[in-house]
Amino acid sequence: MTLLAKNPRLPYFAVVFTSLRTPDDPEGYAVMSDRMLQLAPAQPGFLGVETARGDDGLGITVSYWSSLEAIHNWREHAEHRLAQLRGRSGWYREYRLRICRVEREIQFESDGPCPSN
Amino acid sequence: MTLLAKNPRLPYFAVVFTSLRTPDDPEGYAVMSDRMLQLAPAQPGFLGVETARGDDGLGITVSYWSSLEAIHNWREHAEHRLAQLRGRSGWYREYRLRICRVEREIQFESDGPCPSN
Repeated sequence: MTLLAKNPRLPYFAVVFTSLRTPDDPEGYAVMSDRMLQLAPAQPGFLGVETARGDDGLGITVSYWSSLEAIHNWREHAEHRLAQLRGRSGWYREYRLRICRVEREIQFESDGPCPSN
Repeated sequence: MTLLAKNPRLPYFAVVFTSLRTPDDPEGYAVMSDRMLQLAPAQPGFLGVETARGDDGLGITVSYWSSLEAIHNWREHAEHRLAQLRGRSGWYREYRLRICRVEREIQFESDGPCPSN
């Protein structure tokens, strides 16, 4: 089991979500965050997710999807919509969300480099 | 000054680099990492960078570029090539590098949501 998302077949899509938290409600935020990481993989078209938050407070979550429609549907998911609303009203000081088409990928595992495309 | 990269004019490109470290050489790794974050902004076509590493060891760095050519040139930069080599020979247990075209973006600042595209 690795924390890195597997490489699905190209082309696919990535949602890069970068955020700065407010100091508000760390417990509520953690519950929501865990819940979203549990819900997203159950959505049609979900391919993987990677997430990290450093000591400086910058968080980056990249989720991978088979189509723009799958991304749209996940953004409109009722429970996710509620999380977005609470994010804007309290948890996040600032965020950027970028929807990207993955055009090329390279992977490395420590037994040797292995460009996959 | 914010840790989040500004939104440049679309379309532009993102390099999503996700990695798991080995326990080796934390000092050498930190020096290289700082140096790359200093060098990259001096390259033609560089638009911004965001980076985070969580307590579970997963690191995500997203850099933004004006063109695929700018990404290619940065990958071929001599000092960066050396860092890549040392990364594969010791610092990284595993990584993925995904080159993406940013198709849409949304930003939020806590004084109100402001979709930019």
